[in-house]
Amino acid sequence: MRLISFEHAGRASWGRVEGPEVVDLGAAHGAPADLKAAIALGADMTGEAPRIARADVRLLPIIPNPSKILCVGHNYESHRVETGRDKTQFPSIFTRFADTLIGAEDPIIRPAVSTDLDFEAELAVVIGKGGRNIPEDKAMDHIAGLSCFNDASVRDWQWHTRQFIPGKNFPGTAPFGPELVTLEEISDMDQVRVESRLNGEVMQSATLDHMLFSIPVIIAYVSTFTPLSPGDVIATGTPGGVGAKRTPPVWMKAGDKIEVSVSGVGTLTSLIRDEA
Amino acid sequence: MRLISFEHAGRASWGRVEGPEVVDLGAAHGAPADLKAAIALGADMTGEAPRIARADVRLLPIIPNPSKILCVGHNYESHRVETGRDKTQFPSIFTRFADTLIGAEDPIIRPAVSTDLDFEAELAVVIGKGGRNIPEDKAMDHIAGLSCFNDASVRDWQWHTRQFIPGKNFPGTAPFGPELVTLEEISDMDQVRVESRLNGEVMQSATLDHMLFSIPVIIAYVSTFTPLSPGDVIATGTPGGVGAKRTPPVWMKAGDKIEVSVSGVGTLTSLIRDEA
Repeated sequence: MRLISFEHAGRASWGRVEGPEVVDLGAAHGAPADLKAAIALGADMTGEAPRIARADVRLLPIIPNPSKILCVGHNYESHRVETGRDKTQFPSIFTRFADTLIGAEDPIIRPAVSTDLDFEAELAVVIGKGGRNIPEDKAMDHIAGLSCFNDASVRDWQWHTRQFIPGKNFPGTAPFGPELVTLEEISDMDQVRVESRLNGEVMQSATLDHMLFSIPVIIAYVSTFTPLSPGDVIATGTPGGVGAKRTPPVWMKAGDKIEVSVSGVGTLTSLIRDEA
Repeated sequence: MRLISFEHAGRASWGRVEGPEVVDLGAAHGAPADLKAAIALGADMTGEAPRIARADVRLLPIIPNPSKILCVGHNYESHRVETGRDKTQFPSIFTRFADTLIGAEDPIIRPAVSTDLDFEAELAVVIGKGGRNIPEDKAMDHIAGLSCFNDASVRDWQWHTRQFIPGKNFPGTAPFGPELVTLEEISDMDQVRVESRLNGEVMQSATLDHMLFSIPVIIAYVSTFTPLSPGDVIATGTPGGVGAKRTPPVWMKAGDKIEVSVSGVGTLTSLIRDEA
């Protein structure tokens, strides 16, 4: 099943994608107000509802209003090596605010205060069933689905100190979508490929089996220190090949096109725009 | 003016403290639902409303539901030196989730997974008027008031990697209160003293003029990368003397009493309890 959050005729809604159509589940009588609420309530997402053309909706971030966005740093061996980090026993966790999220058709905003705007192709996990101290062997049962995520980073602000928060929290820097794909659509998680392309050129490419900390390990670790709720987002890290670690560095600029592909999940294409 | 968020007879409310009484502004006809909303709406907080005894209310975190909690690391010279950090050109910023906050009468929960629970006495700034790119010389106009904050930290989890998030986000580790004190109550900000006492013994003590980054500088910096909204919280850093940097280290354990005092603002007293 493939789900989206969207706007249509000035109304925010959510629904199921079927080919060129969207089943507007948010328009059904008594439907939950948004996809996060629908996940939390365990709403049936398989039924019928008014259909609208996919081409007529504007995509919103998969979950426009998550309570928590947790991101994993240096979680692919190739990215750990290029950033010169030591191996750690635990995943490196930082956070984003929800107002950094944008939909799959929105531009990434390069802030006026920096030119060091970088891409980070990632697989995002959306939590379905919340919990604390979730054991690894139950972790996959807590996932509502997967999506593409671009953890676009303002590198100079990320490196002002050791704490990454400033460079990861400029508004309009986290494209999230286009679709939330439920797990039964994925046949072999290990072979799912995360890739970025900048103006058509492949910049990053790795399969999930190259993660240093697997999805179940991340969910177990994170839920030990913070309770997870339906709709929470975990961005699971980016492969090697980021712009900052190239010689010379490659920064995204106005007009560039950055694509994040996750095989079986989708492609997230964003144009870069300078802050007004 | 001194404001609180509280529960009374099973109802969440907010009001003004006057000696032994609380003016229950949240009970007034058409009142905003909570203190954050009241601040956002610029509600009059000086009027009359039903009065209840201060002793009959249970204090909630000053703002129970902030959109953003930003914390500043190593912001007093004495703490920078004891942690062995280089001087940085910019403030070090990390975040907390709102579910880490507790009221001034609630116990701090030492999690089952760690014994390395430390105290951090801090002055908290609550944003009144939101904004982006707030200039330093206007920053004080964006403050609703000040409160006490204990940025209690699970040190081993804080140091799993360079990112502090895990050790700063265990539930029940951030006492915030008892009162929100508006700026006109403070005569000389530079001489406001931030102090912690563990079981009566002074552990940390410094005045605000020992901050490496002043409150206006912090607000200007933070609002450059993220928009601030009414009710957002900035914990402005802790003085030297934390338990982790003593020989041997001093960790808080069940039954301990930790007090955070900010002169002119209040005293925040918390007992430690082990996670159930």
